[in-house]
Amino acid sequence: MKKHNFSAGPCILPQEVLKQASEAVLNFDNLDLSLIEISHRSKNFVSVMDEAISLVKELLQLPEGYSPMFLQGGASLEFLMVPYNLMKQGGKAAYLETGVWAKKARQEAEAMGEVVVVGNSADKNYSYIPKGYTIPSDVDYFHCTSNNTIYGTQIKAFPKVDTLNVCDMSSDIFSRQIDFTQFDLIYAGAQKNMGPAGTTLVVVKDEILGKTGRQIPTMLDYTTHISKESMFNTPPVFAVYVSMLTLRWLKENGGISWIENINNQKAQLLYSEIDRNPLFTGTAEVEDRSNMNACFLLNDEAGKDKFEAMLKEGGINGLNGHRSVGGYRASMYNALPLESVQALVDIMREFERQS
Amino acid sequence: MKKHNFSAGPCILPQEVLKQASEAVLNFDNLDLSLIEISHRSKNFVSVMDEAISLVKELLQLPEGYSPMFLQGGASLEFLMVPYNLMKQGGKAAYLETGVWAKKARQEAEAMGEVVVVGNSADKNYSYIPKGYTIPSDVDYFHCTSNNTIYGTQIKAFPKVDTLNVCDMSSDIFSRQIDFTQFDLIYAGAQKNMGPAGTTLVVVKDEILGKTGRQIPTMLDYTTHISKESMFNTPPVFAVYVSMLTLRWLKENGGISWIENINNQKAQLLYSEIDRNPLFTGTAEVEDRSNMNACFLLNDEAGKDKFEAMLKEGGINGLNGHRSVGGYRASMYNALPLESVQALVDIMREFERQS
Repeated sequence: MKKHNFSAGPCILPQEVLKQASEAVLNFDNLDLSLIEISHRSKNFVSVMDEAISLVKELLQLPEGYSPMFLQGGASLEFLMVPYNLMKQGGKAAYLETGVWAKKARQEAEAMGEVVVVGNSADKNYSYIPKGYTIPSDVDYFHCTSNNTIYGTQIKAFPKVDTLNVCDMSSDIFSRQIDFTQFDLIYAGAQKNMGPAGTTLVVVKDEILGKTGRQIPTMLDYTTHISKESMFNTPPVFAVYVSMLTLRWLKENGGISWIENINNQKAQLLYSEIDRNPLFTGTAEVEDRSNMNACFLLNDEAGKDKFEAMLKEGGINGLNGHRSVGGYRASMYNALPLESVQALVDIMREFERQS
Repeated sequence: MKKHNFSAGPCILPQEVLKQASEAVLNFDNLDLSLIEISHRSKNFVSVMDEAISLVKELLQLPEGYSPMFLQGGASLEFLMVPYNLMKQGGKAAYLETGVWAKKARQEAEAMGEVVVVGNSADKNYSYIPKGYTIPSDVDYFHCTSNNTIYGTQIKAFPKVDTLNVCDMSSDIFSRQIDFTQFDLIYAGAQKNMGPAGTTLVVVKDEILGKTGRQIPTMLDYTTHISKESMFNTPPVFAVYVSMLTLRWLKENGGISWIENINNQKAQLLYSEIDRNPLFTGTAEVEDRSNMNACFLLNDEAGKDKFEAMLKEGGINGLNGHRSVGGYRASMYNALPLESVQALVDIMREFERQS
């Protein structure tokens, strides 16, 4: 039985991508060699990297002057690289704190300079997105996190920003149409909508770099990686390849506008059931609900074993909520089909009927 | 036709490992889910990480007190992490410069403190390993590179070191029996003898950490990763899995003593031919020749096209020398079978016969 994979990340990828990736591990490009045993400088792999970078530009509709990079270290290393590259000596930055990952990003910046927390939803376990905050005019950059997987919240309207605008889009990049050029720097760990764990996409507006007066260690300097087209050192070959395949799948099916429509349908279907079904309660503020991760509680814990047995019976995988929220979290990333959400909703209804 | 893969890295991996990796991308552990679409916190993946760490300890025969980590960023990020974690504020370090990678490591340390270059073979294009040097007694650590892929040199006898002993073993770890406990910190990009590109093995003696007085950024601090067993953030799942399979393959076949014997045979076979065949000349100092990478020149460039056509005809792949040395480089990492070296030697002999 094929599982319905609601894992929060690493998460479901398109079945055809998995099939191509599996084949490439045995024989890539009909070379009679594996993808993972050839030089990253071979024309076959250089072509993969070129296509991956080109697909990012095309799908995000980036004009000239933006450089996509495929790096390593996850969003967590970007928490450090962002202030290193953008915070001036003696400068300061503004952070919006919408979850523990946003908090970790803020803490890393605090080790390098002054940080103003312009909004913080820690008071309600990050169940909402702060609004109406003011970003000081003298900060070097503003940093926010577009989607918060643990709490199931998502920024629907980004603030107007007069300084450099930085966004951690790890868990919702490529899922919805927004004007990506409102940002000067976007980063995202691959392992949600883009590919497997092991690479991080960074997109930066070239002109913002080199202006801090800081000495930046080689590997933490974005200009190192831009100048070598993400090949300063050996890139994470497999993760870049599978990301490229996933972006190609997205493009061939219609791009972000196509997937956004499906993502809206999935979220609508599940949140409607959470709100309708008297046995469940959503945990996030309604207006801030994420289309990627829906968090909900079972009102009466007495039914837990039965509900979870029904989930297992129905092939529902990865629905456990994060320990800091509890309950359930249905992650509905790009590759999750609408039918999987329908399968979950059917179980929720059947559980109500039997209760 | 199966190729003979002499690629310098990423490089050949055992065929059975590639087969298992390919299968796991479709269906891992009979979960009906791909390895790359499940949570890294699932018991199935945690078990992979545990086994990988355990295999490192066992194969390197490490006693209690050493922690292996699977990180990201390649050896290049370790060039920065090593001084961050080991060089005291206002301290200094000693570096042995045996190639451009050793030089890059040295340069990264220089940005953080004083560096003494105790030996340097740049005068002869790094074609030999400096010897007879003195390591000052007041340095915080000594750093060397055990094998230099570009130049085909390898340290045969490591110096006796009275300070912390650090070694970049990216291109020969797990290839020969040495007393690994003479080192306090070993690091190695996976993509030679351990697995695919995308993860870096770091082995550190726990007691040496936390003594510099430096504030270390979270992701650059080894204690971050040790305390979370390489799961502080999402690890590079696929690269760790394939590394684990490769280490398991090494153990099941007899461990490092088994592979060292084969590696010696391969090197002996090829270097004997390089020395015997009047059409070729080895580039590295004989006593410092690497068992991993044999670099050699064709004496008369007029025969280049013919020789390379014969290589292609014989399925020999990845034999181009690095641009800074020229000629040919036969990389004979652990997974390269003796038969592949024999195939190359046969072509060299046939080329001589026809010349």
